[in-house]
Amino acid sequence: MSQKKSYCVIGLGRFGYQVATKLNEGGKDVIVIDKNEEKIEKASKIFDIAFKADATDINSLVEIGIQNVRTVIVGVTSIEESIMVCANLREIGVKDIIAKANNDIHKRVLKTMGIARIVVPDIEIANRIAVQALYNIGIDIFSIGDGFSWVKGVVNNEAVVNKTLEKLDLRVKYDATVIMVQRSGKTIFPPAKDTSLMIGDVVTIMCRNEKIKSVVKLLNVEDIDND
Amino acid sequence: MSQKKSYCVIGLGRFGYQVATKLNEGGKDVIVIDKNEEKIEKASKIFDIAFKADATDINSLVEIGIQNVRTVIVGVTSIEESIMVCANLREIGVKDIIAKANNDIHKRVLKTMGIARIVVPDIEIANRIAVQALYNIGIDIFSIGDGFSWVKGVVNNEAVVNKTLEKLDLRVKYDATVIMVQRSGKTIFPPAKDTSLMIGDVVTIMCRNEKIKSVVKLLNVEDIDND
Repeated sequence: MSQKKSYCVIGLGRFGYQVATKLNEGGKDVIVIDKNEEKIEKASKIFDIAFKADATDINSLVEIGIQNVRTVIVGVTSIEESIMVCANLREIGVKDIIAKANNDIHKRVLKTMGIARIVVPDIEIANRIAVQALYNIGIDIFSIGDGFSWVKGVVNNEAVVNKTLEKLDLRVKYDATVIMVQRSGKTIFPPAKDTSLMIGDVVTIMCRNEKIKSVVKLLNVEDIDND
Repeated sequence: MSQKKSYCVIGLGRFGYQVATKLNEGGKDVIVIDKNEEKIEKASKIFDIAFKADATDINSLVEIGIQNVRTVIVGVTSIEESIMVCANLREIGVKDIIAKANNDIHKRVLKTMGIARIVVPDIEIANRIAVQALYNIGIDIFSIGDGFSWVKGVVNNEAVVNKTLEKLDLRVKYDATVIMVQRSGKTIFPPAKDTSLMIGDVVTIMCRNEKIKSVVKLLNVEDIDND
């Protein structure tokens, strides 16, 4: 195993286990650490190396050789333990640490400790759900930051079908770009100027947030909030 | 309040509270329901209507008038209660239900009950983190499904700068499309054929998943996994 390229996941809760599984599926060397014997026994059948260890003890981490691991993901559930584990990793000199936080205070503590990437799954997904709920069902919306989002939805407005993207001219009229069209299992990417939309097409459009409502309306004649 | 346009959040845990807050910030009428008196007292100062009620009791929901609510978000933490609440909502005839599930089994149960949109925050965020960890730090990657992702990263490869997008021809060489360029606080959207890249530009690129590695490499000369 080339240690510099390896990944370590500490804490095999739902989050940690899923990250480790996905990294493993991605063909990477994954070390997993948990203090629970049962979890480690199960994990040892799946991952390259599984250690039963208490990661709040800095010596255990050094013995495992965590200083040689490229990226460490901390999925530890207890806030207190998560903070101790992250402090240990920083002291050992691990640069690339990704940690899951339970709430905003936990996140702020980890941030002040210099952990660059911190995620609060409940909050991130809640924000996404709220944005989706504000618009229309069947429409998937995701913010990519800086006032832009991509919107993915099914075309069911007769007014836009059988017209080429050039003719629809979303770029000028809606400040939007069609980046992908999916039709009966086939993906048209990138779409051409002479690609026409059809009822049932799933289109992915990139646009400014303030245009989401207009774009959704254009694709989809179902009533959406317009107060 | 136009009931048909309103939203109801059941269960004010971290997830539910955040969804309600975001909907409220979006200017929507939000009804919140929780069985905890303290939570409801706090919530009543923020949201339009806050009910202390046990949503596992169908009569309580009918009294509140949930049948008139447009979208109901179920953030109830207990799996057993979440299932009972969703069953009640289905029986009452609420069509648009979004539910948070704690794990895959919970998700499958809700799915068989006909709940269209179910999220498992830990799992969704874990998948995202794994994809990001597999590539490079400083690069944001998000799958939009069907084998496509958008990749957002900083240009620091001299080889691509001062070349127009037309000349770089990512469409042909990498099956990728540059959808946005951000430069010193300014957003170039959509970029034109004669837009040139510069060191420090933050570019958002849409590409097939199997091309992510090549695209990241092209933008960013930092060493990334290439085993």
